[in-house]
Amino acid sequence: MGKAHSNAFAQVGRFFDTPYRLRMKVLCGRDVPKLATNAASWGWEKTESDWRKVIDRGDIDIVDIALPNDLHCEAAVAALQAGKIVFCEKPLANTLKEATTMSSAAKGRHTMVWFNYRRVPAVAYAKQLIEAGRLGQIFHYRGIYQQQWGPDQSRPMNWKMDPERAGHGVIGDLLSHSVDLALFLNGGIGELTAFSHIFFPGRQVEDAVLSLIQFENGSVGSLEATRYGIGHLNGNAFEIQGERGMLRFDLQDLNRLEYFDATEAAPLQGVRRITVTDPQHPYGKNFWRPGHVIGYEHTFIAALGDFLTALSNDEPFHPDFEDGLRVQRVLDAVVRSAGSKLWETITA
Amino acid sequence: MGKAHSNAFAQVGRFFDTPYRLRMKVLCGRDVPKLATNAASWGWEKTESDWRKVIDRGDIDIVDIALPNDLHCEAAVAALQAGKIVFCEKPLANTLKEATTMSSAAKGRHTMVWFNYRRVPAVAYAKQLIEAGRLGQIFHYRGIYQQQWGPDQSRPMNWKMDPERAGHGVIGDLLSHSVDLALFLNGGIGELTAFSHIFFPGRQVEDAVLSLIQFENGSVGSLEATRYGIGHLNGNAFEIQGERGMLRFDLQDLNRLEYFDATEAAPLQGVRRITVTDPQHPYGKNFWRPGHVIGYEHTFIAALGDFLTALSNDEPFHPDFEDGLRVQRVLDAVVRSAGSKLWETITA
Amino acid sequence: MGKAHSNAFAQVGRFFDTPYRLRMKVLCGRDVPKLATNAASWGWEKTESDWRKVIDRGDIDIVDIALPNDLHCEAAVAALQAGKIVFCEKPLANTLKEATTMSSAAKGRHTMVWFNYRRVPAVAYAKQLIEAGRLGQIFHYRGIYQQQWGPDQSRPMNWKMDPERAGHGVIGDLLSHSVDLALFLNGGIGELTAFSHIFFPGRQVEDAVLSLIQFENGSVGSLEATRYGIGHLNGNAFEIQGERGMLRFDLQDLNRLEYFDATEAAPLQGVRRITVTDPQHPYGKNFWRPGHVIGYEHTFIAALGDFLTALSNDEPFHPDFEDGLRVQRVLDAVVRSAGSKLWETITA
Amino acid sequence: MGKAHSNAFAQVGRFFDTPYRLRMKVLCGRDVPKLATNAASWGWEKTESDWRKVIDRGDIDIVDIALPNDLHCEAAVAALQAGKIVFCEKPLANTLKEATTMSSAAKGRHTMVWFNYRRVPAVAYAKQLIEAGRLGQIFHYRGIYQQQWGPDQSRPMNWKMDPERAGHGVIGDLLSHSVDLALFLNGGIGELTAFSHIFFPGRQVEDAVLSLIQFENGSVGSLEATRYGIGHLNGNAFEIQGERGMLRFDLQDLNRLEYFDATEAAPLQGVRRITVTDPQHPYGKNFWRPGHVIGYEHTFIAALGDFLTALSNDEPFHPDFEDGLRVQRVLDAVVRSAGSKLWETITA
Repeated sequence: MGKAHSNAFAQVGRFFDTPYRLRMKVLCGRDVPKLATNAASWGWEKTESDWRKVIDRGDIDIVDIALPNDLHCEAAVAALQAGKIVFCEKPLANTLKEATTMSSAAKGRHTMVWFNYRRVPAVAYAKQLIEAGRLGQIFHYRGIYQQQWGPDQSRPMNWKMDPERAGHGVIGDLLSHSVDLALFLNGGIGELTAFSHIFFPGRQVEDAVLSLIQFENGSVGSLEATRYGIGHLNGNAFEIQGERGMLRFDLQDLNRLEYFDATEAAPLQGVRRITVTDPQHPYGKNFWRPGHVIGYEHTFIAALGDFLTALSNDEPFHPDFEDGLRVQRVLDAVVRSAGSKLWETITA
Repeated sequence: MGKAHSNAFAQVGRFFDTPYRLRMKVLCGRDVPKLATNAASWGWEKTESDWRKVIDRGDIDIVDIALPNDLHCEAAVAALQAGKIVFCEKPLANTLKEATTMSSAAKGRHTMVWFNYRRVPAVAYAKQLIEAGRLGQIFHYRGIYQQQWGPDQSRPMNWKMDPERAGHGVIGDLLSHSVDLALFLNGGIGELTAFSHIFFPGRQVEDAVLSLIQFENGSVGSLEATRYGIGHLNGNAFEIQGERGMLRFDLQDLNRLEYFDATEAAPLQGVRRITVTDPQHPYGKNFWRPGHVIGYEHTFIAALGDFLTALSNDEPFHPDFEDGLRVQRVLDAVVRSAGSKLWETITA
Repeated sequence: MGKAHSNAFAQVGRFFDTPYRLRMKVLCGRDVPKLATNAASWGWEKTESDWRKVIDRGDIDIVDIALPNDLHCEAAVAALQAGKIVFCEKPLANTLKEATTMSSAAKGRHTMVWFNYRRVPAVAYAKQLIEAGRLGQIFHYRGIYQQQWGPDQSRPMNWKMDPERAGHGVIGDLLSHSVDLALFLNGGIGELTAFSHIFFPGRQVEDAVLSLIQFENGSVGSLEATRYGIGHLNGNAFEIQGERGMLRFDLQDLNRLEYFDATEAAPLQGVRRITVTDPQHPYGKNFWRPGHVIGYEHTFIAALGDFLTALSNDEPFHPDFEDGLRVQRVLDAVVRSAGSKLWETITA
Repeated sequence: MGKAHSNAFAQVGRFFDTPYRLRMKVLCGRDVPKLATNAASWGWEKTESDWRKVIDRGDIDIVDIALPNDLHCEAAVAALQAGKIVFCEKPLANTLKEATTMSSAAKGRHTMVWFNYRRVPAVAYAKQLIEAGRLGQIFHYRGIYQQQWGPDQSRPMNWKMDPERAGHGVIGDLLSHSVDLALFLNGGIGELTAFSHIFFPGRQVEDAVLSLIQFENGSVGSLEATRYGIGHLNGNAFEIQGERGMLRFDLQDLNRLEYFDATEAAPLQGVRRITVTDPQHPYGKNFWRPGHVIGYEHTFIAALGDFLTALSNDEPFHPDFEDGLRVQRVLDAVVRSAGSKLWETITA
């Protein structure tokens, strides 16, 4: 993720009009030779192998944490206590307890969780359409995040497969994104039932998780994530259906939003594919001309751009650590339900 | 459904090579004037308003039941006892008890349940590919049947909305199709958790039902049906993913099967859209030339064609009443789980 | 084609409300044993091997000609002179001279050319949208008919490959359909330039034909047909673009029309996919419920249904022999241009 | 275009492993205040309003020309004479004469024309598949570039509408891209016939151009470009069909290549959609992980990356000025044919 974050810091000033001029001061990590190369590529002024030293520096305003999940809490709290603005990779933490600690430490402070997919123009536009009442009362929300590398035995073990470090498998890695989008687009979750599954013999974190959801707005649906979603390279998808219409998205078609307008005359109804690159679309003026598409990395640039704009206007930014905590509460209920085989409520 | 069934009887001899020459003897129903018109249109020789009289006739070999669900059992058992071949609309019955009675009465007899979607060429081809090992070990199976007329208040109440007649809402009407396809394509179901929902104030049968499924083959998935699936006119869809590939289908693209071959070299992998009209495809020789597509009604013709072929060869035909009972057992577990909010097993 | 025609005669009364009750009197052909089988399958009362004898019969009202192209003219003129209603397979004839003779003989008479694709519901709906001004001034019209069996050396030679019988290759067989749809949807053609090509060594009729077109309404475009369109089984497609919108169709998605509404607010614009099965769509009430799709054969049923309706109301029907002649004039200009390598005008 | 070029210079070192460390020395232009802002955003060290002064500087190695077309020739020749590496926006020039002059001046020198779409991963992969024989003998090539802003009367006149500056309308602006891709993917063009059209009253450059093409490899096809392609924001598309398969691309789905393999068993044939983000795909290792898509700007980065790699290895790079000249020869034949209404050959 360091590459995508570095790119965002380097590029944000070129696409967003911000009063800040970011200086990329220190790249911190443990693999020292690799660190130097990366710092040179991406324009970091210095490198450091001890994150505490970075936090101690007085000339650092923003600390961006891309450590393994189990190290988020300590570093984030330390940075917040040192008065820094703190960004953190998703999920916020491995446990609800850590996430609560982090969110408490962040009260009244400027934070961001890198749930970057809120900043896909098509997703941001879906949010606008929903808020404008284009869907009316919501009936169904389905979110699913599918990748397909699970069965690949040649894939090296990394910290994402280690329950100590990653906490969980797809629940933290993929489902957290789907939960964040669900909360963003469809509001709070009341209760859920879930189960998780390990396909790969001997693997210690779950390969797949499925859940049924009752939302607070009366709609019902499902959230699912899998690394065994054969046929989907990186399919972060949702479908939301209401009395007045339907919206559908798949990250593999990042620049496209599908929309069905149920208020039109019946013979004219059909699912339309909107290429979300118009100047009137979210981020349409930041990037290229209509029809000139953007990619994965722009979601990080846009998140950072929005953060800086909010900061300069002294306005709240979302998703912050509290939003990260909200996601964590849902993930916690998923884990509980997968154990109890019962419906579980989300505890505030 | 009478129209689709009548058409199948009239057309089967034109597309299938069968030793039988069907005579459409009696059309039975209660709306006598309408009955006469329909009989004339579709070539029924006579009409009758009392189904018992039809069953008593010695010159009738096949009785086809398209009554409301709650009347299936009595008529089917009577017809079977009278020595008839019996066809029955889906679902087989409203209750597991009735379905069991019907299946018992059908032991050793020739029966068919009109789960016609098994005979969509794309579905039949999916079955062939799965049996040929094209997917390998199965990881996920998702079935969903979506229609969108639920919110339509102008729609007249009919027996499908009456819990006395229909038994249930989408569970019998739509989910039964999804369950049949799941059993057909992916085998038996071990346990499931489900919930159902009524959106329309005052409606007495469920508008939507969602479930999570553990299959006996170790795969996990979901089955869902809704009349509030805005954006889907008649979307009976499934996706099945295994170690070697993925298959996907949506009834709105009846002539198409999507296939992802995970055994190909990575750069060449992609979801392909197969138009299932080749002479080597199921039913490819029965209907038109490649690229000349078929429609909804042909699934009934093909089901009947296959039945007659099996009959003439004295071979078993599926889905018969026992298959209908298997579907009913799953529907029964869905209803139980929706009440208990617990995981329920399928009882044999 | 006999199968599709026979099916239409047998089925039309079941889907269209017509005062006529068609009797399928005589099936005429040269392969006598096959003729008997087909007659039995499709319900023809008698068979005959000499078409002149059929025309001489007084109890025949409609003569339907599905002979090789070079035999159309003689049979059609004879049938017209005998006072029959005459239907003829497309193209009307092999030469402009023959087509002119046939059209003259048909003056004031009831005729039909089987340009059945006008009766695809999606095509008929496109026509309605265009006539309602949904596209405004037209800029571009592109028609292309692609099949892919051209390179197949195992394919037996038949009369369609014989210049004596077929007149031409794709020009008569496929381009004629594209020309008919262009005239139907976009009006008269002013001038064109074309060339044809033979890929297969030794083949005597063209495998592909390409043309550029200036329409009388000021729009510009192209018409193309090929048997070397690898990847397209039966792709009869068009795209029409105007100041207010765009429509697009491909026969392989027979039940679907794509529509882009350029009058909507820019952020909401997108190509929508309309499933043309609504009761308000053309033929929506004749066939099945919304989302229950139809197939290839229904275009013949609908053409016949419309013909019989027009006949009973004493209204004109299109496409008749004069429309067939209009297509032939364009094909003639294509052939002339392919020879001269010059732009050619359509002569009235 | 300056924005996309600047971004490429700034980003290339982060995605491509090159021995060069580019310094962005001078941004040159006439709008001095805007120049300063842009230079600051993109990291140009200095600004300059007289391009001759830039060329005179000894510390400049690369000159990148993004002037109006009519100024390309003078600047490029001057820069080449001053010993610079020269990049030039497409089309190379407004006339064949200027392009010839530029190409002559570039003999033995390092040049690039910004036909950036050759570097779309999907296009580069199509080229690999063609060269590997995946299509076999080619039958058809169709290229079309559609935008839809032509009818927009609110759009300010700019130099692209001025025949003095732009030379032509869509011929230089859009068709040049389609011609370059055709030459790249399908080789030389023998002869063509074309016509151009102005829809907008009073406009002085063509809004649309259509042509029929005979390629030197025996395939036939068409090339077309329009600003009246309603429904297409930026649709640079091609389809290429051969005895062994078909490939299809549309720039609006930049990360996707469609492939039909005609050598597979018939029932398994279907158009597959390949997401071109695999490490084994072109540029797959330069950008993000599989399924993490790229955008418009990356085609410029990749073109520059390839140029620098070729430079460091002392290997030829394409498209250079000679390739630009080849495109110009085709455009010249298009213009000639649009005037003469005759087939025209491409003169070497």
